[in-house]
Formats: sequence, structure tokens, C-alpha cells
Amino acid sequence: MYKVDINCDMGESFGLYEQGNDEEMMKYISSANIACGFHAGDPHVMRKTVELAKKYNVGIGVHPGFPDLLGFGRRAMACTPSEIKDYIIYQMGALREFANIFDVKLQHCKPHGALYMRAMEDKQVARAILEAIHAVSKDMIVFALNNSEFMEEAIKMGIPVAKEAYSDREHTENGSIILTRKGSEIKDYAAMADRVVRMIKDKKVITHDGKEVSIEADTICIHGDTPGAPELAKAIVEACNKNDIQVLPIHEILK
Amino acid sequence: MYKVDINCDMGESFGLYEQGNDEEMMKYISSANIACGFHAGDPHVMRKTVELAKKYNVGIGVHPGFPDLLGFGRRAMACTPSEIKDYIIYQMGALREFANIFDVKLQHCKPHGALYMRAMEDKQVARAILEAIHAVSKDMIVFALNNSEFMEEAIKMGIPVAKEAYSDREHTENGSIILTRKGSEIKDYAAMADRVVRMIKDKKVITHDGKEVSIEADTICIHGDTPGAPELAKAIVEACNKNDIQVLPIHEILK
Amino acid sequence: MYKVDINCDMGESFGLYEQGNDEEMMKYISSANIACGFHAGDPHVMRKTVELAKKYNVGIGVHPGFPDLLGFGRRAMACTPSEIKDYIIYQMGALREFANIFDVKLQHCKPHGALYMRAMEDKQVARAILEAIHAVSKDMIVFALNNSEFMEEAIKMGIPVAKEAYSDREHTENGSIILTRKGSEIKDYAAMADRVVRMIKDKKVITHDGKEVSIEADTICIHGDTPGAPELAKAIVEACNKNDIQVLPIHEILK
Amino acid sequence: MYKVDINCDMGESFGLYEQGNDEEMMKYISSANIACGFHAGDPHVMRKTVELAKKYNVGIGVHPGFPDLLGFGRRAMACTPSEIKDYIIYQMGALREFANIFDVKLQHCKPHGALYMRAMEDKQVARAILEAIHAVSKDMIVFALNNSEFMEEAIKMGIPVAKEAYSDREHTENGSIILTRKGSEIKDYAAMADRVVRMIKDKKVITHDGKEVSIEADTICIHGDTPGAPELAKAIVEACNKNDIQVLPIHEILK
Repeated sequence: MYKVDINCDMGESFGLYEQGNDEEMMKYISSANIACGFHAGDPHVMRKTVELAKKYNVGIGVHPGFPDLLGFGRRAMACTPSEIKDYIIYQMGALREFANIFDVKLQHCKPHGALYMRAMEDKQVARAILEAIHAVSKDMIVFALNNSEFMEEAIKMGIPVAKEAYSDREHTENGSIILTRKGSEIKDYAAMADRVVRMIKDKKVITHDGKEVSIEADTICIHGDTPGAPELAKAIVEACNKNDIQVLPIHEILK
Repeated sequence: MYKVDINCDMGESFGLYEQGNDEEMMKYISSANIACGFHAGDPHVMRKTVELAKKYNVGIGVHPGFPDLLGFGRRAMACTPSEIKDYIIYQMGALREFANIFDVKLQHCKPHGALYMRAMEDKQVARAILEAIHAVSKDMIVFALNNSEFMEEAIKMGIPVAKEAYSDREHTENGSIILTRKGSEIKDYAAMADRVVRMIKDKKVITHDGKEVSIEADTICIHGDTPGAPELAKAIVEACNKNDIQVLPIHEILK
Repeated sequence: MYKVDINCDMGESFGLYEQGNDEEMMKYISSANIACGFHAGDPHVMRKTVELAKKYNVGIGVHPGFPDLLGFGRRAMACTPSEIKDYIIYQMGALREFANIFDVKLQHCKPHGALYMRAMEDKQVARAILEAIHAVSKDMIVFALNNSEFMEEAIKMGIPVAKEAYSDREHTENGSIILTRKGSEIKDYAAMADRVVRMIKDKKVITHDGKEVSIEADTICIHGDTPGAPELAKAIVEACNKNDIQVLPIHEILK
Repeated sequence: MYKVDINCDMGESFGLYEQGNDEEMMKYISSANIACGFHAGDPHVMRKTVELAKKYNVGIGVHPGFPDLLGFGRRAMACTPSEIKDYIIYQMGALREFANIFDVKLQHCKPHGALYMRAMEDKQVARAILEAIHAVSKDMIVFALNNSEFMEEAIKMGIPVAKEAYSDREHTENGSIILTRKGSEIKDYAAMADRVVRMIKDKKVITHDGKEVSIEADTICIHGDTPGAPELAKAIVEACNKNDIQVLPIHEILK
């Protein structure tokens, strides 16, 4: 029996602005990366998202971003490591308080957007985030691209790491991903679900330029802001079910 | 032996903008109301302020405000009770995470500025704040003006209340205060320190219009953003010491 | 031949957050109230919205709001008149610069949400807004509910006023409107279009509680964020066309 | 007779947060770079700063920054050229409206902090800013380091450029500056004033590492947020007066 976690960014609405179809996605995913008010999300949205995650038995993760609502956290900002560390602690604490109210635990941390990409590539940013996590929690899992700086630093610090691959983004030969929106149009759910199945069972993926490479993935990301995301999620879960792959929150896989 | 807590708003700097002389104030006060990034403060400032409070054995309190940095939280906003509740939880959690890192506990909650005044007068706002506190913590103390809606609701809900008076603001006959900046200029430290001593020992204060009224105070507020605030704090503490009044964090008084 | 202006709030998207179907609405309306970044909108959205308005020959208006993106400007804030005045000038200037680039003129000013409602009821707020307009422009038209403080002050100051009624909100007997979202669901486009026709030709409307009252309207508002708004706009314009009512930008009606 | 402009960042207070001693500085400088609410400043501060500049006959310039109040615009953000262009237009328009009220003209544009440094080094950022200026104004002067991308692009586009040097920052051999705060402590006003005089009369400066290099400067920047800045400004103006150097707003020098 194979196991995989399916994660999705959640709680990215803000005030009257709605983003994604959170409740529909919660039916299929096993881990939710919840925005904390810096790049998206607000206190009201966080409460509702934590409540939804609990209702569907979805693992709850912190999804901290750069303080850039206007850019949705997708623009790198030259923050110092010590600024980043404190931004993570702040966002983590805000989410933890809502989690406490619903008596659920924070399971994981996945940085958002430009902060994620910076963490994968820049050791100082990676360490800033990991030090924040380490300071407040001893068993929180971090999501990282395989072979990234973030993964390597986490291992050094004894922080559990879930290797992440993407259902709806192209991968490069070295294990990184192409996050541009252009490549993100979901057209063929069945093909994408098959791709995920192959990632898990055969540990292989075809890169953006057509090469077959090895891949290791504990958790698969689906972008919830893409129209059609719930259908993709459903297709992936059904394909997993048919292929002896159990979909579980990451803490039940890595334990 | 009499006892009193002396509290001050702390951590109200933001980015490069500095406000108040926090370290100097920490030497004299016994409880710090720490801003949480909505009306003032930022993650970096919060970390430093919690660290300072620990260094000087000062009780740490949440100081949540309306989301209005431009107005410093001093302008009432027509937020719904459910918005206010979630804003409190968010700010409280953010601060609690920093407190956890320094292994200190959140002692109290004092709403800021317009939110404080609204909480005193408006039962719905009072309950929204108190419900947030109740949902996350069973022994957190709230600061309230005597006879306010906030105090009465807190008592009904079994939340411990510290009655608050002001060293540097005029009081009205009904126990409320006049928060305008004009009346707040500190001129005569000794006279103000004597006034505090009288509040504690004789339970009396002279109102803004010259009447002597009864007052009950467990904690005395000093505004840290007034120039000269550290000198006032020092004068108050010295006057307390000479008059058998012990200055202690509120949780050591109300226990 | 009757004449009416049809106005709609436009440019209320923010960063990645999309709101309304601006291009579809522009085909039917004659005046656009463009958000300026305080309650909604951002510089990029403003540029695109001005460009769209020009493309469809729609009059361009400033749509300033309280500085409350989280509340979409729908929560009253206790700003001082002098703060409000400067907020209006700032927002107006930002929009005017984009208008200059496309060589179009700012036609009108319609305050947004809570600022609109406050301007209608509170003489000080009304004057603050009108003084801002007066300081920068001598022929800018303001939108006001009939008999409101805002209308009366504008007349006193010699600022041209367009009387405004709502296609998709209930009216009260005294000429005010009920802005709550609940009453705003658009169900029967034809009935609403007929109602608009009656407002213009017969100067009558049925209030929320069933009374027929007189109404005077130079401009009719449609809320663009309601699903179905373009269909409603289309129905209104078609009904106007069939009933000898010409739909024109307000500056061509009041001149 | 030599001529020089002395410029300073102004209007960088925000809400209750005060920064710099604007009125004192206005007595000595000839051009004010006025923050526009993105990295610092707010509508109220802008009004007061424009009024002050007019009172002291100081030329008024736009001082646009990245949308990062928390970082005071000192952190580079990976905005697209088209985002930057619209941010400049927005900020420029907001300031122009206040300038119109006081019947003064926008004289120049100097980007702030990280945006300034990016504009000097990155042709795309330089062009984005210059295109914004070009779209709205044909005679606005831009401030640029000598030989920077920003200067070269401005010349290509026919936009008048003022070459800028710094009174209180170290220069490098290639004409750039070292903006870190550490090197910026002002200690010896007379020595700094002499350095400025030498820059203007001899067109020479000693670099941070002790070499004498040629320099051309039409305008000299003083940082207003440094304690002691007014004294430095006074010393510079007095040294200029004694050395046949006339201090004038940049538009009177470049005309």
C-alpha cells in the first residue's frame, strides 16, 4: 500500500474578496496550507478555514508569506533573516490560536509563493524560517522541494520534512518547479491524476522539457485558485484510490 | 501593606518609526500592554518588547486594537462583534507565540484606544472581546474601568477583572476617563504621583471638574508616548515605595 | 425625451483579487465610479479601469472610501473632517493622473460605502468631502441622495449635484436607501428595469414597505459586485431605450 | 558664481509616527522630496509638507517608493515594470493634487530607498519610472547618480536629469553611494560642508576607501532622518554662501 498527502493553499480570501472554493477542496485534500493575513487571508477567514479543515479531517498547516497583500506574496522582498523569522512566528501564532479554539494541532508549515521559492534556494532564508519553527514547536513538519536548501537545512536541524511535488506545475530536471501561471492551466484532469499516480508508485515524472526523471514525493500540491481545482483534486483522489495509494494527512505518513 | 499594578502601553513602534522609550519604562512598570500589529507594533517590535518585559520581570499583556495603523487605533470603527472577536484572537495568538519563545505567559488583555473606549460603553463590543479571551484562556485578566460594561460582562463570564485608573488622564464623576491628548500633558510629576498614592490608599480622586469622588483601582495606567513618561513612572514608583504601596504585576495582586 | 445617467462602482479588484465584471458593465453604464486604492482598487486596476471607461465612452468619477481594505470601506470610521478632506484629495489626485494619461477628465465624485452614508447624514463629513472637491475642481459633479445633508451643502457651495437613486436597493420614505446586502439580491431584471423607468418618467417609487413616494433621480446606481449585474444593466438600458429615456453620462445631462 | 540644489526627503511621518524635523530642514534646503504614502507619508502629512515647502520657497518633488511601509521602502521588491510604472503614476498624482491646492508645481521626481537603488542599476526599473514621468509631465526633472542606468535612460528619453551626490553618505569610485545607515552617522558638520563645497567647486570627492575621484553634482542630498540633520544643512548652506555657491531649487539651475 502506497501513501500520499494531498495539500492545497486555503484561506486565501480577504475581506469581501473571495479566492478559491475552499469547502469543495477540503473534501479531497488531506492537508491545508492556511494563509495568515500577510499575503492573503484575514482573521475571519482563518477562523472559517480552520473550522472547515476540522470538519473534513484535514491536517492544518501554517502558510506564511511576505507582507505583501497587493502582490499576493508572489514578489520576492529583500527582508533580513531576522525579519523573516519574526514574520513566521507572528503568522504561526495567529493561526495556532484559531487552531486551539477548535482543539486541533498545527501539523505543518509551508511557506507561500516568493517566500517558498526563496526558502528553497537561499540558505539564510531557509534557516530563518526553520529557526522560527524550531523555536516554537518540536514536531512541526515542513514542506520542501527535494534536494532544496530548505530540505537540507531542515534535516540538519532535525525538523521533519515532507518532500513536495506539484500536480499542476511543471517540474525541472533538478527537482524544482516552474511556478508561472501560464503553465498552470489545468486541461486534462485524468492525465494529471495519472502523473501523480506515477510520481507515487514509480517515483518518476516527465519534466517540462520532456525528460523522464526520478522524483520522491510525500505530499502533492494542488493550487486551489485555479478554476477547476476541485475537479482536479477529485480526479487525483479517485486515481489514488484505484491504484492502492492511500491519501492521508502528512503527519500520519511521516510518523 | 497596599498593592498596585502599574501598566503602560509598550511595543508601539513600527518598522523604522519609533514610539516611546520602552526600555526606560520597563524599569518602573509592573505590567506591559504590548501592541500586536493592528494599530501599532510589528513582529520585530513584539519580539523585542516581550524580551524586554521578561528582562525586567514585567507582566505581559495583549494590547489589541482596531486594524487602523494610520489612525493608531484611536478612531472607532464600526466592526461587527464577530469581526472584533476574530481580530482579538489573531492578535492574541501572534503575541502568545513570542511569549512562548521566551517562556513567559500572557497575563492580561487590555484593548487599545478606540477599542478600549468602545468596550467600556458597548455591551456587544465588550462581549466580543471577552468571548475571544474566554475561548483561548481561562485565567487571563482583563483591564477595565470600574462600573463599565466591559467589567460587568467580564464578571458575568467569570473572567478576572483588574479595575483600572489613569495617572495621566482626568477622571469623570462616573469613573470614566478623558482620553484627549490635550489634558494629558504631564507637568507636575510629584502631584501626579501623590494623586496615584491617594487613589490607592484613600480610594479617592479629584475629577476634572474639581469634585472628590471614590475610586477603586487595581492597576494604574501611564501613557508611555508622552514625553517625560519615564520620569513620571519613576516618581509614581518612588511615591508608592514611601507609602507602603507595593508595585506588583497584576496576577500577583488578583490571585 | 427623458434623460438619465446610469452609474456603477468600478475598479474594485485588488491585486490578484477580482471583483465584478467591469468590462461587461462598461457596455451599459454611462458613468463609472472608480475606486482609488483605499477601500478597493490599486494603481494597476485604476489604469485598466480608466482605459476601459474611455473605450466605452463612460464618464469617469472618483469613488473615494475610508482607508479600510479589510472592510471594503463599508465600516464607518471616526475620522476627523480634516482627515477625510485630505483622504479625498489624495484619492482624487491619484485617479486624475491616470485620467490625464488617457486624456479624459474627471467628471464626478461619489463617495463609497460607509463614507457615502456618513456624507448623506453628517454635515461635517459632507462639508469635508465637498471642500476637498471645491479646492481642486470647479465643475466636478457630486452624487447625492435627494434631500441629504450632502446635497444641501453642495448646493450652498455651488457644486453641481446629481440626485441619485438605486436600481437594486430598497428606498425609504424619506429618500434614503437600505444598503444591506440582504435586500440586494437581484431576481427580476424586468421588474427592476420597470422600476427605474418609473423613477425617471413618473418620478415615483414604491418604498421597501410598500408606499408610493415621489423621487427625483438624475443618475441611477447599479451595484456591479452583484452576480447578474450586467444582465440587470442591460435590462435597464433596453427598458430606457424603449421608453424614450436617453442614457447619458451625467455631465451631458446637468450641463 | 557656482550653483547647487540641496535636497532632502521630507514628509516621512505617518499618522502619529513622527520622522525628521521637516520645518527646521525646510529653512536650509532648496528642494524637498515628498513621500507619497507608499513607503512613508500619508495624506495629512503630504498636505502639511507641501504647505511648508511653499512657505520656504522650496521646490517640490515626488518621492515615490515601493508599497512597503513596514520596511520604509528600503527592501527591494520584485515588482514588474508595469506595476512600478502604475505605482509611480498613482503617487505622483496624489502629490500633484496637494500641490495644485497650494498653487505650486511638481518640480522633480526622486525615487526612494530600494526603488532608487534599483532604478540606478536596472534598466527595466529605470525605464518604468521614466515612462510614468514622461506620460504625465514633459518638464519634470529626475534625480540620478552620475553614469547610472537611470541617468542614461532619462537622457535617451529627453527627460532633464539632475546629477545627485550625497552629503552624508560615502561614495564609491564608480559614482555610486553606500546607503547603509552605519556609515551615515554625521559627526563633523564642518568637514562634511567642506566636502560638499569641494564637490561643487573642484568637482572632486574622496571615496569611502580614500581615493580622490571626479564627481559632478547638480543637487546634494541630506538625509533628514538623521539626528542633527538641520545643523548639517545649516553648515552646508553657510559654507556654500562663503564660497560663492548659490543654493537654488533645481529647476532654477537646469533651466
